[in-house]
Amino acid sequence: MTKLTRAALAERDARDPLAKFRGDFVLPDGVLYFAGNSLGALPRAAETRVAEVVAQEWGQDLVRSWNKHGWIDMPLRVGAKLAPLIGARANEVAAADSTSVNLFKLLASALKLRPGRKVILTEDLNFPTDHYIMQGLTRLLDGGCEVRTAPAEQIIGAIDETVAVVTLTEVDYRTARRHDMAAVTRAAHQHGALVLWDLSHSAGVVPTDLNGCGADLAVGCGYKYLSGGPGAPAFLFVAERLQDELEPPLAGWMGHAAPFEFSTDYRPAGGIARNLCGTPSVLGMAALEAALDVIAKAGIAAIRRKSVEMMDAFIALVEQECAGLDLEIVTPRDADLRGSHVALRHADGYPVMRALIARGVVGDFRAPDLIRFGITPLTLRHTDLWDAVAILRETLAGRTWDTPEYHSRAAVT
Amino acid sequence: MTKLTRAALAERDARDPLAKFRGDFVLPDGVLYFAGNSLGALPRAAETRVAEVVAQEWGQDLVRSWNKHGWIDMPLRVGAKLAPLIGARANEVAAADSTSVNLFKLLASALKLRPGRKVILTEDLNFPTDHYIMQGLTRLLDGGCEVRTAPAEQIIGAIDETVAVVTLTEVDYRTARRHDMAAVTRAAHQHGALVLWDLSHSAGVVPTDLNGCGADLAVGCGYKYLSGGPGAPAFLFVAERLQDELEPPLAGWMGHAAPFEFSTDYRPAGGIARNLCGTPSVLGMAALEAALDVIAKAGIAAIRRKSVEMMDAFIALVEQECAGLDLEIVTPRDADLRGSHVALRHADGYPVMRALIARGVVGDFRAPDLIRFGITPLTLRHTDLWDAVAILRETLAGRTWDTPEYHSRAAVT
Repeated sequence: MTKLTRAALAERDARDPLAKFRGDFVLPDGVLYFAGNSLGALPRAAETRVAEVVAQEWGQDLVRSWNKHGWIDMPLRVGAKLAPLIGARANEVAAADSTSVNLFKLLASALKLRPGRKVILTEDLNFPTDHYIMQGLTRLLDGGCEVRTAPAEQIIGAIDETVAVVTLTEVDYRTARRHDMAAVTRAAHQHGALVLWDLSHSAGVVPTDLNGCGADLAVGCGYKYLSGGPGAPAFLFVAERLQDELEPPLAGWMGHAAPFEFSTDYRPAGGIARNLCGTPSVLGMAALEAALDVIAKAGIAAIRRKSVEMMDAFIALVEQECAGLDLEIVTPRDADLRGSHVALRHADGYPVMRALIARGVVGDFRAPDLIRFGITPLTLRHTDLWDAVAILRETLAGRTWDTPEYHSRAAVT
Repeated sequence: MTKLTRAALAERDARDPLAKFRGDFVLPDGVLYFAGNSLGALPRAAETRVAEVVAQEWGQDLVRSWNKHGWIDMPLRVGAKLAPLIGARANEVAAADSTSVNLFKLLASALKLRPGRKVILTEDLNFPTDHYIMQGLTRLLDGGCEVRTAPAEQIIGAIDETVAVVTLTEVDYRTARRHDMAAVTRAAHQHGALVLWDLSHSAGVVPTDLNGCGADLAVGCGYKYLSGGPGAPAFLFVAERLQDELEPPLAGWMGHAAPFEFSTDYRPAGGIARNLCGTPSVLGMAALEAALDVIAKAGIAAIRRKSVEMMDAFIALVEQECAGLDLEIVTPRDADLRGSHVALRHADGYPVMRALIARGVVGDFRAPDLIRFGITPLTLRHTDLWDAVAILRETLAGRTWDTPEYHSRAAVT
């Protein structure tokens, strides 16, 4: 393999069809931002849109904005804009609540769709809050369900006729290892189980094909690769064929068939809308919608192409520049098997990441020993990869991370 | 009673200690805004604060803002600012999710605290989404609970040893009729039941004394009298004595004892924090926090005093100016028995409110026949009451509401 140079990477930037989108985001000076997998950068359009919603729609038009400015339609309108990124139809996605709350809704609904089956099957190392939600639901139902766990590579073998629903996060938040959605979904359906995908670490950068693989249910996060802003509304997907069978456990007024009738009897809306609950966060929806418009303009296929190219380059640079510096590359080399961040193992990952951040390379750390670099194609240049790895090399080679200051705190977020 | 005049009301404005706070809100020209009980007006500080959070904290400081700008503490910090408005201690309130989601959490928790009891007792005409949430929980638990309803005045008599929790909205959204929190709470406790108050139509204008009356649980809305913005985070209250006994059904990472340990085992945080679930809406929290700071400056006691004075004046003006015009005043005359909106019954309430809105008097309509006027002491002047009632009189006397245009739509929000 030929050696990568900064000049070669600069050439890639020069002919990058997505390069112009960088200007659509606010990026602080002096920072190489590799944490867009944790909190996506601010789209300039989101800043403008939020200001407009506050000043004009809330400030001037007040309560009339629910109709006049379509606030009431935001959950479904934003959902429809999200749909093409995850292989869903426009009427199969809604933006609402948090990922955790949405996971609860759809897990509870899935159990009702498979009476007589009690098992929720998941990966032993699934994202923590997914585990917490399953544990909370299990306690609540008090014998009505149980959680079975298996290592990632043994999930398919663990599916049997007792399983009501298999729930997995497509892209692992530690390693970026990706599940085979089609294979897992097929296996689940062979045993009569449903599948619920958590696309938190996929949506906006890894195009998934929910309908292509026959998936039943999905949830995901709005503030990572989607750049919807801190605590942005999350989303949920229900395949059209199942929508009218769901019994929402969180039956709020936004999911009612006629919310403005003020009847005291719950009557679920048809379609995806019944999975809405309370009043949507209008400011959060406005920011997320603006971010989705930028992603749509760039195109998810082009974003994925650049992500793969950058991931390959980052991994190659680490091998080329950081050999012998005690790093282990834990992210899969095969692009089909991974998402869009690079995880490196280092025994002193925590102080290493602190030292990198101090030099402007903002990634993050996940216990016990992983440093992560999120690859966000709309905001990162190819040369940023070079510059970040150069600083990584200097930091490791010079052991500049090994100071009490960098060892001192409990968490890097 | 002496006749009220516009001059007398102007005099009240001149000596109103809260008059200066009107300038802290954005209010559109040509509008008399009586829908602050549905969506509170925009505090100027909220506009500034949201812009700062977007531009500086999200845009420039990015993911580091979770610590640097205290995003992670927002749910409890905002909760602590809310506490004095509802008679709670700072560590008893959190801002989170929507009212509907919070109601679900606390109802499910309450049932777990009273094993062997299955009944949720509520008012037959409680707020619709409260009913929907109870019905959804009942379906989910499949025999694990049931809802019993009674008319408002028969609630106390309907409490017995089968009741796990009594849940009521303190101020009725139609009539503004107020429950006696102390009496209901006392009766519930005598029978070993818990009480969960929905303060959506109280918080920010009617000071409640949750601890003074020994209440157990409460929820409420952030975007009505609190002026936290459209779809603002809601809140929940758990009395300190119960906090560590609760088993949260929505067990998300924000309620974990150590969210950044990324353990897959749920361990609830101590105190109120365990009732948090997913990542908070930072933009929504920022707006709500700014609004609470304005309310704190004005003082809830002064707000209540002005609310009572304005409610009395509005009702007196309707009697004085609109006699014989087919209006029935359904809001209680006794200030102790009501919240802060005036509800008037008119057989053609819907087109009447449409006609009022066309003339700049923005109230709202609730089926089948109520028109509502929210009294928000920080944004309304005493003379606004006169001007609104004058337009009401002209509209009714001239029957200007009786046109096909005003009859034509399905809902006024």
